[in-house]
Amino acid sequence: MNYRAVEPTGEYVARLETGAEWRSEIESLAAEVEADAAWFTGLGAVSDAELWFYDQDGLEYAPVEFDEPLEVASCVGNVALLDGERFAHTHVVCSRPDGEAVAGHLNEATVFAGEIHMRAFEDPLERAHDETTDLDLWL
Amino acid sequence: MNYRAVEPTGEYVARLETGAEWRSEIESLAAEVEADAAWFTGLGAVSDAELWFYDQDGLEYAPVEFDEPLEVASCVGNVALLDGERFAHTHVVCSRPDGEAVAGHLNEATVFAGEIHMRAFEDPLERAHDETTDLDLWL
Amino acid sequence: MNYRAVEPTGEYVARLETGAEWRSEIESLAAEVEADAAWFTGLGAVSDAELWFYDQDGLEYAPVEFDEPLEVASCVGNVALLDGERFAHTHVVCSRPDGEAVAGHLNEATVFAGEIHMRAFEDPLERAHDETTDLDLWL
Repeated sequence: MNYRAVEPTGEYVARLETGAEWRSEIESLAAEVEADAAWFTGLGAVSDAELWFYDQDGLEYAPVEFDEPLEVASCVGNVALLDGERFAHTHVVCSRPDGEAVAGHLNEATVFAGEIHMRAFEDPLERAHDETTDLDLWL
Repeated sequence: MNYRAVEPTGEYVARLETGAEWRSEIESLAAEVEADAAWFTGLGAVSDAELWFYDQDGLEYAPVEFDEPLEVASCVGNVALLDGERFAHTHVVCSRPDGEAVAGHLNEATVFAGEIHMRAFEDPLERAHDETTDLDLWL
Repeated sequence: MNYRAVEPTGEYVARLETGAEWRSEIESLAAEVEADAAWFTGLGAVSDAELWFYDQDGLEYAPVEFDEPLEVASCVGNVALLDGERFAHTHVVCSRPDGEAVAGHLNEATVFAGEIHMRAFEDPLERAHDETTDLDLWL
């Protein structure tokens, strides 16, 4: 079991700016509060989204673009250092007007409205290459 | 970046009552612990649900009704004051027997079973009209 | 309103092990940190999953098996004692390469990669049989 006890250094709520990029906004929040490790959840709406799906055999991400307004029914993720930069690993569940849900790894999306809760932790989380999955993982 | 550091005043787990209304139950919990700002996540099942989707062009919500039992695979939201009353802004992902997911802004749903985790914060969050989105937003 | 104020005893982030069983990994984390009550959220990917849907009329779970790689777009749940053993009640939203989402109560899934945030609480949560729903509920 790879785990770590974390020491909270701060807790925040944020409203993402309309027209900004969803993941960048979360990374900006982490930068503003100087968090190199954090956990967040959120909700809102976006005017478009690019989700990624990881091919577990081919070991690479494939993008799917949604050029349409979507609710963000769920957003869960964490902030860690990747190659020395803060990276917000972000998964979302979005939905269409009839309620149909689409979900995945969020590469980018344009914020319509967004509400985020973040807990920042003392020690940095650092992503490093994992041989088995070819992903950058922490711990 | 619109954000605020929050001071926790309490942390709670709650079991929503079978037959009650899901969002009202969360607002009752906030009332009982006197929280004018809180963040929550949850899971469970409902016997029906009315989800709303925000039309980002027409700037109004359109409802979709699901008159059927659904699992609540995810529930994320927050409590803030809206016109002086506690309002639980609640997004959910629900699912049907074959696993198909539907999701959106939860207006109301009848609890079959529900489990909620809530963190309450010191300073109230207050929603006010936002010109750009025509939504009531905090911060 | 059935609720309880909880006293946190620890906060953790964990990386689930590739090839392990998702829910067991969460229960192992709870065991390792000696938590008889905890709340968690998470994200990641699995190489297969068995989701359960509760039949609210028949009062029993029906399984749906997904023998395919899926992103885990959301994972929300809690740890409590069930018949004296730690049980991680776990709901997930997963997605396919085209973004299509499937969701429900997670019985088991094989971890491809998984990231979990857990808060552990002082007093145990204990599940007991609930007459109305025929489920094992706490509080």
